[in-house]
Amino acid sequence: MTAYQQLEDRFRRLSALGEAEGVLHWDMSTMMPEGGAGARSEQLAALAVTQHELLTGPEVAELLDAAEAAEDDGLDPWQAANLKEMRRRWCHATALPADLVEAFSRACRHCEMLWRGARPASDYAAVRPALEEVLRLVRQVAQAKAEALELAPYAALLDEYEPGSSVARIEAVFDDLAGFLPGFLDEVLAGQAAAPAPLPLDGPFPKARQEALGRRMMQAVGFDFDHGRLDVSFHPFCGGVPEDVRITTRYDEADFLSGLMAVLHETGHALYERGLPPQWRLQPVGEAGGMALHESQSLLIEMQAARSPAFIAFMAPLVREAFGASGHAWEAENLVRHTHRVERGLIRVDADEVTYPLHVILRFRLERALVAGDLTPADLPGAWNDAMEDLLGARPPDDRLGCLQDIHWYDGAFGYFPTYTLGALAAAQFFDAARRALPEIPEALSRGDFAPLIGWLREKVHGAAARLSTDGLLAEVTGRPLDPAVFKAHLQARYLG
Amino acid sequence: MTAYQQLEDRFRRLSALGEAEGVLHWDMSTMMPEGGAGARSEQLAALAVTQHELLTGPEVAELLDAAEAAEDDGLDPWQAANLKEMRRRWCHATALPADLVEAFSRACRHCEMLWRGARPASDYAAVRPALEEVLRLVRQVAQAKAEALELAPYAALLDEYEPGSSVARIEAVFDDLAGFLPGFLDEVLAGQAAAPAPLPLDGPFPKARQEALGRRMMQAVGFDFDHGRLDVSFHPFCGGVPEDVRITTRYDEADFLSGLMAVLHETGHALYERGLPPQWRLQPVGEAGGMALHESQSLLIEMQAARSPAFIAFMAPLVREAFGASGHAWEAENLVRHTHRVERGLIRVDADEVTYPLHVILRFRLERALVAGDLTPADLPGAWNDAMEDLLGARPPDDRLGCLQDIHWYDGAFGYFPTYTLGALAAAQFFDAARRALPEIPEALSRGDFAPLIGWLREKVHGAAARLSTDGLLAEVTGRPLDPAVFKAHLQARYLG
Repeated sequence: MTAYQQLEDRFRRLSALGEAEGVLHWDMSTMMPEGGAGARSEQLAALAVTQHELLTGPEVAELLDAAEAAEDDGLDPWQAANLKEMRRRWCHATALPADLVEAFSRACRHCEMLWRGARPASDYAAVRPALEEVLRLVRQVAQAKAEALELAPYAALLDEYEPGSSVARIEAVFDDLAGFLPGFLDEVLAGQAAAPAPLPLDGPFPKARQEALGRRMMQAVGFDFDHGRLDVSFHPFCGGVPEDVRITTRYDEADFLSGLMAVLHETGHALYERGLPPQWRLQPVGEAGGMALHESQSLLIEMQAARSPAFIAFMAPLVREAFGASGHAWEAENLVRHTHRVERGLIRVDADEVTYPLHVILRFRLERALVAGDLTPADLPGAWNDAMEDLLGARPPDDRLGCLQDIHWYDGAFGYFPTYTLGALAAAQFFDAARRALPEIPEALSRGDFAPLIGWLREKVHGAAARLSTDGLLAEVTGRPLDPAVFKAHLQARYLG
Repeated sequence: MTAYQQLEDRFRRLSALGEAEGVLHWDMSTMMPEGGAGARSEQLAALAVTQHELLTGPEVAELLDAAEAAEDDGLDPWQAANLKEMRRRWCHATALPADLVEAFSRACRHCEMLWRGARPASDYAAVRPALEEVLRLVRQVAQAKAEALELAPYAALLDEYEPGSSVARIEAVFDDLAGFLPGFLDEVLAGQAAAPAPLPLDGPFPKARQEALGRRMMQAVGFDFDHGRLDVSFHPFCGGVPEDVRITTRYDEADFLSGLMAVLHETGHALYERGLPPQWRLQPVGEAGGMALHESQSLLIEMQAARSPAFIAFMAPLVREAFGASGHAWEAENLVRHTHRVERGLIRVDADEVTYPLHVILRFRLERALVAGDLTPADLPGAWNDAMEDLLGARPPDDRLGCLQDIHWYDGAFGYFPTYTLGALAAAQFFDAARRALPEIPEALSRGDFAPLIGWLREKVHGAAARLSTDGLLAEVTGRPLDPAVFKAHLQARYLG
């Protein structure tokens, strides 16, 4: 066996163990009784340390060196991309000394635990010392990874979630959006105020009926229940493996749209996983690309396709049937009003697609400043509130609605936030390209027929897996790298059209 | 760290990985869509090979040698038992050359696959060559393990399921039962024929109501739903881990008793797991003892306690309530007639507690002869049918109802069958000892109160984990090793009393 082939063997086992871990995580969020938490932690820790050993053993370094030295001898582009991704993972895994990994993990667990109490109490002071410790270690992590990956510190953090992306490019794109969105938001809100308010959709909406409707919608989009499941969890997510993709939602008996849109969003993630190339299963290059690419696939289904007036026209009679509802409030037109509602909200996870990027830009700017040492946790609440006022025109009355709202930083995840908005932009760009290639897509969606759209995505996006960066794939598929103009055009057409 | 402490570390990780495997198996039987099977196999294979490497690495042999050499230096009895169990596992794992493991595993998969088709078609010839190959390899496995464990070949196979048991002792006990049961069965059937037939229990019994009743019974027995679940699978089983025990059943809408008794049976397994000593979690000695001991705990709850007239008196009004039933058929007396029904059935898994041991004795005798080379697969169907006629007084009309009925041999599991009946005997013996120690138990059961019984089992049986063999624990707790007289007395009291 060549060095490259030996690496494929090693990574096949690593990926299979990672998938086992994924099943345990899914189970933890959907099935596990509370009392199982301690034992589950032990299982997950055993899997994590085993994978770490398999990835960082000295023979892996030798095999990587040997395979890279021999690369000219005939790896095809997929194999070469696979080898590159193996090296990137190895770099991330070996960049940090064991004591830093341990200290960072402990600090994150501690801080996250305090955050769980501090958020509802709006008590930032209670978690600030723990956040300071997390940040101190994040900066060490960033420095160590920067050296290993030959990147700037913040870029090294981002690379874990979105390989091959450029911070300068993200900054330029976000500055562009930050210039455009506030004024656009004013215009949308003015138009909304001048139009009739949406008629209320009165519940209650029994969970079982919401679930049946969700399954009907999943079927329409193309979810294959022989290869996946729908369950309930506190936060919706997509887990499992390509042959067995497991999505979740949660049901609010007073508001069916939120759970239903979560189902459609997660179905987008699921179809991406399901469409990954079978011949590259259990190899790094065969897994999903960066988080932005993953998010682009969920947002494409939810925001671009499912919230389009065309699809809502198809959905409206099924919604009426599901809940035995009738009357003007249940016409497609009114459902569109609900799904296109925009507001100056303070909470990111509840935000509409117009304001969402502003929430993300704020976090991107602040976390870069925190990692660079230009902002301290002591000054975070004020900086947050100022930025909210500046970008969104709304000031949080307390930290619960401000800098305490998201788990990410308190859990040590710096560099993750940008991927949400990069995904939204990429979604618009892919959907635009799909419609140009197949102009019949909107009409098909109005019949609940996703086949043309999904077929195109399978071929152009899903099948590419991690062979290219998000920007690289956008360039290959749409003719240009990430371009905020397409997203802006989408917003203009939908909200001022 | 001492060698012993290093071994504890190694086995803690091994056990945690084994538990991860257990969760994946549970999921596979309860949740996984069909399409997930291929990926799941990869995950399980990766976990298996990883555990095998961790258990058989050269450093483990050195640590075992060192710890055994230093044992006099102060291991307490639990630690000593733990070390002994580590060595036993290591012996099983290292006894076989890798190519034999691989060949055996392949032969079993192949044979089992053929068996799945051969059984419904009653086509023994279709699977015979594959069974011959399995048996050829089983005999090699038995020989290799016999050398490693210093046991006779069949005893070495049995040791995997029931450590520390003696084949000669099992043979003596089974010969005793084989002498007693056929005549006893005649008597029981004569008495049954002379008594009024049970009144039919007319369904249908909706699954949701059966499940609610099952949960109510689990609660009575003491199942803690913060630390476990009840789900549905094709074959009932008990999986999960002590802090998160997961049992399953299946529901027949025409017959609620079968699913309900399965729930009670699996609850017995679950309580055993739940009662294992927390301070020995993730160590070999802290796991459940042999399969006979495990089965003794399920049969104690199902056969000894739940099928007792005392408990059925408690259960009867709850059954009526669950199904909105009334009338004579639903009185406790008639329910007892149903749960104590005995017949000369041909199928082991459907057998009552009187005939079950005869099914097992037949298999024990035949598998010993197969492993010894005294019986060939060519002669198996005839030998099976002759033995059935001899022991049970009924001759299978075809191999589907004869030697094709069980998966075990076709899947390579030789040495497992005896544990069913050893468990039934041990159950009677433990229950008898519990009632002698706490005479209030039957009265408590008639109120649905399992607390005295479970408290006694926790202290005497569950908490002992794998510290002793089944026989050793019986001697410690009941004053004598396995003794068929107690089981026979139980049968006489229940069926001829």
